[in-house]
Amino acid sequence: MRWCPVASILEKIFPILTWSKNYNADKAVSDLLSGITVGMTLIPQSMAYASLAELGPQYGLYSSICGGFVYVLFGTIPELHIAPTALLSLVTYSHTLHVTFGKQNAVVLLCFVAGVIELLCGILHLGFLVDFVSAPVVAAFTSAVAITVASSQVKNLLGLQFIAETFMGAWYKIFEHIGQIKKWDAILGLSCFIMLLFLKKIKDYGEPPFAENCGNINGKRSKIKGLLWFISISRNVVVVGGCSLLAFFLEKSGNNVLTLTNNVPSGLPNITLPPIEVNYEGMNFSFVEMVSQLGISVFVVPFIAVLGNVAIAKAFAKGKAMDASQEMIALGMCNIVGSCFGSYPINASFTRGAISNATGVKTPTAGIYTGILVILSLTFLTPFFSYIPKPTLAAVVICAVLSMVEVTMTKLIWKINKIDLLPFTITLLSCLLIGLEIGIIIGVCVDIILLLHSSARPKILFEVVMDNDVGNYIKITPTSAITFPSAEYIRERIMNYHRNESSTEQYMVVIDCHRIHKMDFTAGKCLGAMMTDLKNNNRKVIFLEPRLKIVKVLKNVCANDILVAETEEELRMHLKHTKEMKLPHQEARVESFKQVREI
Amino acid sequence: MRWCPVASILEKIFPILTWSKNYNADKAVSDLLSGITVGMTLIPQSMAYASLAELGPQYGLYSSICGGFVYVLFGTIPELHIAPTALLSLVTYSHTLHVTFGKQNAVVLLCFVAGVIELLCGILHLGFLVDFVSAPVVAAFTSAVAITVASSQVKNLLGLQFIAETFMGAWYKIFEHIGQIKKWDAILGLSCFIMLLFLKKIKDYGEPPFAENCGNINGKRSKIKGLLWFISISRNVVVVGGCSLLAFFLEKSGNNVLTLTNNVPSGLPNITLPPIEVNYEGMNFSFVEMVSQLGISVFVVPFIAVLGNVAIAKAFAKGKAMDASQEMIALGMCNIVGSCFGSYPINASFTRGAISNATGVKTPTAGIYTGILVILSLTFLTPFFSYIPKPTLAAVVICAVLSMVEVTMTKLIWKINKIDLLPFTITLLSCLLIGLEIGIIIGVCVDIILLLHSSARPKILFEVVMDNDVGNYIKITPTSAITFPSAEYIRERIMNYHRNESSTEQYMVVIDCHRIHKMDFTAGKCLGAMMTDLKNNNRKVIFLEPRLKIVKVLKNVCANDILVAETEEELRMHLKHTKEMKLPHQEARVESFKQVREI
Repeated sequence: MRWCPVASILEKIFPILTWSKNYNADKAVSDLLSGITVGMTLIPQSMAYASLAELGPQYGLYSSICGGFVYVLFGTIPELHIAPTALLSLVTYSHTLHVTFGKQNAVVLLCFVAGVIELLCGILHLGFLVDFVSAPVVAAFTSAVAITVASSQVKNLLGLQFIAETFMGAWYKIFEHIGQIKKWDAILGLSCFIMLLFLKKIKDYGEPPFAENCGNINGKRSKIKGLLWFISISRNVVVVGGCSLLAFFLEKSGNNVLTLTNNVPSGLPNITLPPIEVNYEGMNFSFVEMVSQLGISVFVVPFIAVLGNVAIAKAFAKGKAMDASQEMIALGMCNIVGSCFGSYPINASFTRGAISNATGVKTPTAGIYTGILVILSLTFLTPFFSYIPKPTLAAVVICAVLSMVEVTMTKLIWKINKIDLLPFTITLLSCLLIGLEIGIIIGVCVDIILLLHSSARPKILFEVVMDNDVGNYIKITPTSAITFPSAEYIRERIMNYHRNESSTEQYMVVIDCHRIHKMDFTAGKCLGAMMTDLKNNNRKVIFLEPRLKIVKVLKNVCANDILVAETEEELRMHLKHTKEMKLPHQEARVESFKQVREI
Repeated sequence: MRWCPVASILEKIFPILTWSKNYNADKAVSDLLSGITVGMTLIPQSMAYASLAELGPQYGLYSSICGGFVYVLFGTIPELHIAPTALLSLVTYSHTLHVTFGKQNAVVLLCFVAGVIELLCGILHLGFLVDFVSAPVVAAFTSAVAITVASSQVKNLLGLQFIAETFMGAWYKIFEHIGQIKKWDAILGLSCFIMLLFLKKIKDYGEPPFAENCGNINGKRSKIKGLLWFISISRNVVVVGGCSLLAFFLEKSGNNVLTLTNNVPSGLPNITLPPIEVNYEGMNFSFVEMVSQLGISVFVVPFIAVLGNVAIAKAFAKGKAMDASQEMIALGMCNIVGSCFGSYPINASFTRGAISNATGVKTPTAGIYTGILVILSLTFLTPFFSYIPKPTLAAVVICAVLSMVEVTMTKLIWKINKIDLLPFTITLLSCLLIGLEIGIIIGVCVDIILLLHSSARPKILFEVVMDNDVGNYIKITPTSAITFPSAEYIRERIMNYHRNESSTEQYMVVIDCHRIHKMDFTAGKCLGAMMTDLKNNNRKVIFLEPRLKIVKVLKNVCANDILVAETEEELRMHLKHTKEMKLPHQEARVESFKQVREI
């Protein structure tokens, strides 16, 4: 098909056209198993995440329908599944809290606009912007999100009722309302929490039953391991199902003491276009009015979604080519189509990726099976959803985000590059104390300041070379490109060195340029001034191994009056020549100096 | 005196204590001549600059009193003379245009606050911030200032009257009011302009009469050259004096057709503290109210003053140690003390520096003589100042700023580093079309974006080394530090290269680290992931000549599983060893591959 340009473009836009050619029954079975396993985590989690965004649980399910179906067309990484995440749920919550045109309208509109922006970023190849957020800042941000999410769910775990947006606010309110804790909610919530932790732990003793390497182990032991693994993976369904049954029987026996989820409307959402014009509580809102109410959220939400998505995509690309732009297009399309199904902003989650990976997913088709499972549960299971106790959902969320707190990474940062703990700590504290969005902006600023600092203050090596053959000389080696922020600094360092090393013996200065791959106008001008200064101080400068580009710059600023040695050999020749030339001259200088002293 | 810490600190704060030790009669004579020559340029120019700030000419003189006296205590560069400049006059004008507590109060307050900020920056050693403005941006900004200043003076040259803040505004108004040009003003103004250009030109044929190298030329020719030079240097006094006489006689004969300067109050200004509280037109303004009216001006003015000052100080330091912080302290003190004498913001000027240099100035003492000359002229000459025609002053300003338009520098930028024309052009156009302050901010942003781009996309050299002895291998040389913005890019480039070079022959990958002097956490993490990916693709990686720091990072991310060669020799040993080791293995791989194909 390579000969047809249209087909080639279509293959670029729809990667499914490429990978579907090799699709077979084996892959389909793997994908089916993987899709169902992911679905069993996704369904309880998405309902819990929706409650995090202060939306009804059905919105979590609505948001989980489209991702799989759309991603299968545009996506390339089988492990990715675009659906609600704790991060985006929390961000959506805080960014739609104060709108006046209805929370539901706001989240769906935000999903649509974010999708459009993600799509545009993908088309314009703006994915490189994500590179300017360093790993420590991402880690700190993720940890802060996890801590904030967990803090915001403590109230549901304990049966408290209040509104708090931030980490500080949540804990302040918890202590304020501590007397109103509902005993049975708290007992159930904490039990679920411990249960989930325990079920998560037993995964370490199990093994994926249908993963690739399962062929090696046989027999009963393998079956037990497989069962343990499966129970652990479906822990959310197990716990949520168990608690719902408990609540159902308590309800039937007429003494329900638990806070339950509100009634969940049955069936699929209405398929409508995203809200272009809205009439809410008798007021008309135009598209522009609504978007301006959302404000910078329409940039913050896609930025955070893309940041998470690119990181997860890279983690699961495993060294294969990963087209970040295509992934952004896929993410954008998932959000745009999703917004027609009443979805709030969605992206990929690391947890779902890890489960897909463990279950041996082969292609993005797995997402279709997950989607079908969500549709089935919306169609048949909604009557039972209203029996899910709120504390149970809170426990599900808290357990899900706990692993996002990057404790091990701080240890690694400490080992590798201690200075990187600075952006980490500043970002973490800013996120928790001021707010998530401002925190990450502060983190990026710290990143950029550190970057600018290192280009402004590069390392310079000074060395006095003692050599009887060619005479002593000073060798100066700047270790990186010389550009405007560092030019003056380098000039000053070199001139200061010369003032301190004032003996006439070190008459020659060798500037080793082999590491200088770039020099801008400011640097050239500055070095030109330095050359003049050194000349006035009776020093001679030789440039060692400069690139052609650098020679051109130096010739322009020094009026061609420069000495260049392309090799060490040439340098020695130059030095020897100068030594022979200068000897009488230097003696003369010493002579005249003596005369002056004698007078 | 070294043994006494107090004396040492005092010497640091007051450089005069050091250089005054060697002061002698010779130096005093040089300084006196230099001081008087500078004064003869300063007096007419400062009056003209004051009119640029829409202040009475006496304010230019008031602002010229203190600089010399204060700088002699704190300054180190003899050529510097802190007094009004075209740049700061224009900035002061546009930043005090809309205050409601009186123009005079505003400029004096601005001078005081700017002085305090400059002093603080000096004490806190914040001078390095100036390094983040590249030479092309400074050149564009200076040129834009010159063009704006010249444009703003065209109205006075032609006898027009209107208010315009910007370059665009000035020319728009000029064409709007073109019918109201005053014939005699225009004739005088243009004549003065041509006269000044001519007198400036004759300097090329003259020579400084009391400069150091004057001993070589004797006789009549030298005297003529000296005279030419002196006339050229005092051209402002000559032209202003001549035109004032003309206006005086026209006035006496009762038919003055020229626009003259307003009456200049005689005598020195009242010495008062800077306006801490002001009663203006019946309204009381507190210090905080006034500063908040000045707004960001209180940062813009010192930033621009320091930018100019540091550049001029560096130009005249001539390779000697230049303490930027001490210069900022000196500048701050000049402004703070100046504000008690009714001065508006002042800094050093390149013109005055060049004159001082040409007249062989020896120490900052020269400034005292200039100051005394200003005081004398304020005491005795003010009655004559009101006869100075406005068009003459306009011609003085326009001629002074014309040389600030950096035409030759654009040629040099073109030759040295064409990409630097981008920040130059953007800054110039932004300054002229939007405004000077916004223009320089845009310029700095372009600078920083270019800097970030180059740290995000470093050059990587790829080389396939064919060697029968040790086997073929791929050598990859990143040319600079690997930090977070470039880490992913480098990983991707390397992985892409491997996907394309898929023949099993290039089994070994050598990463040449000798130019990598730094690696942060993100880069380490990223390289760790790349190592895993390469391993999965059956490639073996050897790091060549890494620094100890880099080895430590790599060991931490790769669980010690790395191969390091400290020299080329060691590399060859490694390669040879691996070649012998891998041969059977590789054949086995080919064997099994064949089997698969045959099945």
